[in-house]
Amino acid sequence: MSQTQLPALRIGLAGLGTVGLGVVKIVQRHGDLLAARAGRKVEIVAVSARDPKKARGVDLSSYAWESDPVALAKRGDIDVFVEVMGGHEGPARLATEAAIAAGHDVVTANKALLAHHGHALALSAEAAGRVIRFEAAVAGGIPVIKALTEGLAANQIRRVIGVMNGTCNYILTRMEATGQGYNVLFDECAKLGYLEADPNLDVGGIDAGHKLSLLSAIAFGTQVSFDAVELEGIQNVSLDDIGLARDMGYRIKLLGVAQMTGRGLEQRMTPCLVPADSPLGQLQGGTNMVVLEGDSVGQIVLRGAGAGEGPTASAVMADVMDLARGTRLATFGQPAASLAQPIAAKTATPAAWYLRMTLLDKPGALAKIATCLGEAGVSIDQMRQYGHPGANAPVLIVTHKATREDIDHALGHFAGTGVLVGAPVALRIEEV
Amino acid sequence: MSQTQLPALRIGLAGLGTVGLGVVKIVQRHGDLLAARAGRKVEIVAVSARDPKKARGVDLSSYAWESDPVALAKRGDIDVFVEVMGGHEGPARLATEAAIAAGHDVVTANKALLAHHGHALALSAEAAGRVIRFEAAVAGGIPVIKALTEGLAANQIRRVIGVMNGTCNYILTRMEATGQGYNVLFDECAKLGYLEADPNLDVGGIDAGHKLSLLSAIAFGTQVSFDAVELEGIQNVSLDDIGLARDMGYRIKLLGVAQMTGRGLEQRMTPCLVPADSPLGQLQGGTNMVVLEGDSVGQIVLRGAGAGEGPTASAVMADVMDLARGTRLATFGQPAASLAQPIAAKTATPAAWYLRMTLLDKPGALAKIATCLGEAGVSIDQMRQYGHPGANAPVLIVTHKATREDIDHALGHFAGTGVLVGAPVALRIEEV
Repeated sequence: MSQTQLPALRIGLAGLGTVGLGVVKIVQRHGDLLAARAGRKVEIVAVSARDPKKARGVDLSSYAWESDPVALAKRGDIDVFVEVMGGHEGPARLATEAAIAAGHDVVTANKALLAHHGHALALSAEAAGRVIRFEAAVAGGIPVIKALTEGLAANQIRRVIGVMNGTCNYILTRMEATGQGYNVLFDECAKLGYLEADPNLDVGGIDAGHKLSLLSAIAFGTQVSFDAVELEGIQNVSLDDIGLARDMGYRIKLLGVAQMTGRGLEQRMTPCLVPADSPLGQLQGGTNMVVLEGDSVGQIVLRGAGAGEGPTASAVMADVMDLARGTRLATFGQPAASLAQPIAAKTATPAAWYLRMTLLDKPGALAKIATCLGEAGVSIDQMRQYGHPGANAPVLIVTHKATREDIDHALGHFAGTGVLVGAPVALRIEEV
Repeated sequence: MSQTQLPALRIGLAGLGTVGLGVVKIVQRHGDLLAARAGRKVEIVAVSARDPKKARGVDLSSYAWESDPVALAKRGDIDVFVEVMGGHEGPARLATEAAIAAGHDVVTANKALLAHHGHALALSAEAAGRVIRFEAAVAGGIPVIKALTEGLAANQIRRVIGVMNGTCNYILTRMEATGQGYNVLFDECAKLGYLEADPNLDVGGIDAGHKLSLLSAIAFGTQVSFDAVELEGIQNVSLDDIGLARDMGYRIKLLGVAQMTGRGLEQRMTPCLVPADSPLGQLQGGTNMVVLEGDSVGQIVLRGAGAGEGPTASAVMADVMDLARGTRLATFGQPAASLAQPIAAKTATPAAWYLRMTLLDKPGALAKIATCLGEAGVSIDQMRQYGHPGANAPVLIVTHKATREDIDHALGHFAGTGVLVGAPVALRIEEV
């Protein structure tokens, strides 16, 4: 593009793992395409990673090398600092802060960093006239940050729902398809490299909770508040639950829901039942889906790969292209100083609940449980006692709409009945 | 937002039908929200419509009134001309040209105008340093123009697929669900107000074809070429075809496909079979879906309301918000002068085909048809002859992959066999 008039946009790339190499490949493969669309060249000037000698299968020889990402972030010859190292403290945080201080825009794929420090980083970036973009931090290749911040900018957002951790959805999908238990599939994921170094980030719902907290901030104009996300992982989802849910026309998903209520902001990332024939219920394998509900637009569903080299690098480069084209938005869609401090509300939006428990097989056991529910104000929609070869009776109850508080209240009383074997399972049935 | 520093963004709104009133309602309801997100007020200054006295249920008293949209477009006190009148000639075209000449940016919901004159309008807008945005012109509330132009800006686009006319999808879905024929449901849509004034724009695939041609231009960096879209409407889709497709695990959709091939740009909007369990196959009713395939991102699926006051106004206002925030992109994602003149390729990408025909019930009839296929190089995957109370035999053939040309060649020879009753049906089976 010899006719381009603006100088090239210069990238400093911190991190040469899967995503970083994906970025290098796009820049090298699509130089002309990027220049045609941005009206200027987009080029990598310098990179940083731990091991300069590691064979990476791409030619990095024309880029300056920095062993310290903070040194990279401070370079005077870059316009954008691209952070794809990960980790919410240490080098990622220090380098991002250094980049802003040095007057650079930042593009990051780091959901943990922003979930923990997003508000402070946004404030300092905006004070410095700099931009932080993070499309790749949520739902991989799906342009959901853009859809929410820009595409739905004229909507009051009612609710954000999503399946945002591919590994969890893979495990849950495979449990249903193969009849293999959680532990078997967890081990399979470990072998396939689908798990974070700390697997609890995935299966504990933390990674997905990070993402939800970022979407919440944009959707509701509030400061990121990851600590307020109600988190429950998938470790205790059993084949029994998956099978019983299926028999009733539901699937179990690790579902994120954020909504603003009269009591405050509800954010939860928990296993839920959703209708099997809904778009979320039909989502198989490692794919991600985010549903955005706005007062004018209604329901928008976005689906795509939530991880992987190509999709994540595509999202990083979308942010880079925005900057190359001169698009400059506040990190969370409005000035950080104008974001409200959210009132975190423990989920009070009522829902139907799936309750599964095992009772001692003696007269009146079921009546005692029903009494506990009634006393907590929870009414029963369906109750089934299953055939049981042993001495104990598995029971499934679907309630009419009730709050989490009422359900917890009832569950608290179950223990005192003396008829329960083990702990009951309580899963929300989300209307989607 | 007394602290906003930029002056308000001033809208001139041409058209007060469903979409125009939706825009008015958003601006009136969400003044604070828009100002917080844009960093400046967004206000309507003047409006235009045919009848100033019509009761519209909203307060328009604070807006200047122009009976002529061209006069509105020329006003010196607006920044953005919002065109939601429709029609690809006459007032819409004249007013859009006048707005650009007067130095205003343009936001339009008018797919017909852009499908016919988009390249010329983009050239003149860019020569004048002005921007034309058209999110509302394609797939209603779904932010698909943004996703393709910006979210996937670093991808080479491989294919764009979509169900982009809600009325057609409603008719096809209801035919399967109710067993009512096309004509009955066409009349129902007319009564419900689901049809354009010229219904052939909907059921003939023209409206959806307009939309596809706009996506093609962005996806492949080519000048809009609506005339090159292969169009086939849904008027001839029969209950027999819907039932036979379902029996094989498919659904029939009016499907738009655009892809760049070695021979040129293929664009088609035709009834196709898609797997019933794919996202496109599962799409019910008036909803729209667009699937974007990029070399890095893989497959992104976007789903939402394709029409209606709220969703379409949401998309119009997303473009307005982009302008208010200072986001300025070339109409088709790169300078119009750099868009290639596409070589229109008649579809040559091979596919499996669904062929249904009625044969005279006499010996050797089926063999003659099979011979025609074989001579055209088309091999047969499945063939079924159905039970038949009358004298003629309904036959269903699914071919292995073949080009449109080969299929047309075979069909041309069918006539000469003298065994065919009526015209055969040929529908592409699209891999999605």
